[in-house]
Amino acid sequence: MPGKAAKNIDIMKTLLAEIISIGDELLIGQVVNTNATWMSQALNRIGVTVTQVTTVQDDRQQIWNAVSAAMAKVDLVLTTGGLGPTKDDITKGVLCDYFHTRLVEDIRVRAHVHALYKNRPEVLNNLTATQWLVPSSALILENRVGSAPIMVFDKGKHVLISMPGVPHEMQTVMTEEVMPYIRERFDISAQVIHKTVVVYGIPESTLALQIEKWEKNLPKTMHLAYLPKQGIVRLRLSSYGEATEEQIQEQVNALLPLIEGHVLATDDLTVEQLMAIYLNSHYQTIATAESCTGGRLAAMLNELSGSSAFYKGSVVAYANEAKMNVLGVKEQTLKEFGAVSEQTVRQMAEGVRKLLHTDVAIATSGIAGPTGGTPDKPVGTVWIAWATPEGTTTECFHFGGDREQVTARACTAALAKFLIAYA
Amino acid sequence: MPGKAAKNIDIMKTLLAEIISIGDELLIGQVVNTNATWMSQALNRIGVTVTQVTTVQDDRQQIWNAVSAAMAKVDLVLTTGGLGPTKDDITKGVLCDYFHTRLVEDIRVRAHVHALYKNRPEVLNNLTATQWLVPSSALILENRVGSAPIMVFDKGKHVLISMPGVPHEMQTVMTEEVMPYIRERFDISAQVIHKTVVVYGIPESTLALQIEKWEKNLPKTMHLAYLPKQGIVRLRLSSYGEATEEQIQEQVNALLPLIEGHVLATDDLTVEQLMAIYLNSHYQTIATAESCTGGRLAAMLNELSGSSAFYKGSVVAYANEAKMNVLGVKEQTLKEFGAVSEQTVRQMAEGVRKLLHTDVAIATSGIAGPTGGTPDKPVGTVWIAWATPEGTTTECFHFGGDREQVTARACTAALAKFLIAYA
Repeated sequence: MPGKAAKNIDIMKTLLAEIISIGDELLIGQVVNTNATWMSQALNRIGVTVTQVTTVQDDRQQIWNAVSAAMAKVDLVLTTGGLGPTKDDITKGVLCDYFHTRLVEDIRVRAHVHALYKNRPEVLNNLTATQWLVPSSALILENRVGSAPIMVFDKGKHVLISMPGVPHEMQTVMTEEVMPYIRERFDISAQVIHKTVVVYGIPESTLALQIEKWEKNLPKTMHLAYLPKQGIVRLRLSSYGEATEEQIQEQVNALLPLIEGHVLATDDLTVEQLMAIYLNSHYQTIATAESCTGGRLAAMLNELSGSSAFYKGSVVAYANEAKMNVLGVKEQTLKEFGAVSEQTVRQMAEGVRKLLHTDVAIATSGIAGPTGGTPDKPVGTVWIAWATPEGTTTECFHFGGDREQVTARACTAALAKFLIAYA
Repeated sequence: MPGKAAKNIDIMKTLLAEIISIGDELLIGQVVNTNATWMSQALNRIGVTVTQVTTVQDDRQQIWNAVSAAMAKVDLVLTTGGLGPTKDDITKGVLCDYFHTRLVEDIRVRAHVHALYKNRPEVLNNLTATQWLVPSSALILENRVGSAPIMVFDKGKHVLISMPGVPHEMQTVMTEEVMPYIRERFDISAQVIHKTVVVYGIPESTLALQIEKWEKNLPKTMHLAYLPKQGIVRLRLSSYGEATEEQIQEQVNALLPLIEGHVLATDDLTVEQLMAIYLNSHYQTIATAESCTGGRLAAMLNELSGSSAFYKGSVVAYANEAKMNVLGVKEQTLKEFGAVSEQTVRQMAEGVRKLLHTDVAIATSGIAGPTGGTPDKPVGTVWIAWATPEGTTTECFHFGGDREQVTARACTAALAKFLIAYA
């Protein structure tokens, strides 16, 4: 059915969007632009491709230029920020001028703002009153949680939507008003599909060679990205409207045998999420005994809400005294083999497993640097032990990077190696 | 000396910069663009104004357009991302074409990459070999921690510097190579002065009112910035070439009495650095007993190299069993008052102090959320205890924000309150 296919491709033409983030605070490094990330994720999920994020100061010329460039390029432009009632917020005025329109009073917005501040009459001053002045040519969407109206400038081929920059306000109006509006306005049926395979223990460039042939034979409708972090490489296979879920899954199925023994997950999950899933589904508990990772492994394990179901506690035994007194590492072992040794890390893991009565215990001992290295045990040497009901295993790693990197890589290895062995 | 002043102002004409962040992962919302924030902060500190951040996909036309637009507008363009050895990394090729140059082998980069992977020969494959191909017209700066060379395209009035997107690599090369290069290339070394006063325990808006009069009377040559984070506000007083060190110090001296009892430091140090300085100078050791902070306080204390001089260890007692068995918290106390109580947190601090024989011990117990709150003890309730040779003190805090923020604020409070009381 070539006719149908052709029509589908037409319907499936991806909607292109650009985000313009407005605010001085974003450009002096005071605030991280999490809004753009949140919006990209939300848009991506409904099949909108964000091609660019432009962050500009609260400056008339800069806002104008960014809007002008974006409106010439993409179907949908989303701006955040600069809608507050104070002098430094100028977005509304600039948009008014850019779209050749003027401000008029909106009685619905006025009523809404009055309702919003009914318990804080002191907020209803002259500045706040500017909030119910809206561009006459704009469609106004409701901002349930704030005073700034959401403005839609619909120019036929191109649409601009302006939202406040306060993250929780933006998220609320995106979810409740803007996303439903976009779906309807652009008749979105295109589908962006991502499948992620999480790979551990193969460096990015080695991995690329290992799967080169598979990658070369990927259909043109799919795009592969490598996302490396601390020894883990996420392989993300994406389709922007042209491949089906099944077609992508087929490619993933062909990929998996090529990287056997190194696959942590076929979902986009973190190593700590995977560990939580494993422990919960096996009704197992865990504890850690840490020297060089210094509490970071503990922090990773209880980062997620609900961790008390499987995580019991940790001993950060930085000093040898702590290794002996709390974990029961033998003085003779420390003397004979040193703190960074298979023998010590094994006793640490078994010690904390016994102390806290858990099923699993992981111990780390190493040299995070920058000082403390020796020719025998250079900076980056880390011993890890895993004590389980089946016994204890150990492994010695040599991590590159600075103190922070060595520590982060050791934590990732401690969890990833466990999952590869047991999950 | 009007001549001299005029010359100074000329030298100090602000340098304008633009950041181009390259990477699909930034535009599907998978990765937050913290690089741009970090770079903006670093550039700001030396008096460079970032006017725009443009985030684009790994796409030839988009990178080209962004580079072209930025090079026409600002003195300095910094790009990150797209420098890996795999096919989806195209930045180097695009820059090569844009600047009409070609790739040549750089023997220094080749030697560096070989040294970098000397213990991992499997990484030295055909893909990695592309890393020592560099644009012939570019100045190459060293990337000590990675394989991607840092490329500087100097076009006289406009300079573009291309860096890798891996945050720790970017931060290392910015600090060690790029920032010194920028200072020298644009002659902006001596004149930028910052003095930072670190304030704890006054909300930003209250602080602004409290020092309003002082701020209004600041000379026009000085600029004040509020940098709030986790209960700490850094007040940064800056001069870009016009005020002297002494003039700025005078203003700081006038500020301090207005915020008495809340000043953590008059240098731009982190709370963990301040704690390390205090403990080292008092020859004291520390341990922590953590429930809700889950090891993060331990991680903060041993983030710095040399921490083994003062930091002995920690017990992360997440389960009540661990609180009793390891720290010696009485079962009766947990039954009567609960885990989140003054009595429990006091016994935790005193327990770990005794267990690890330290001078100081800090304990935390609270409800980080999102679940676990009660009307009596809502999410955000955190008890902290400080056990010292002089005795034990405790305080109850109510932190706002999500799980991550509550934990971070508790860690900051644990150290900041100690420093204000004892330092």
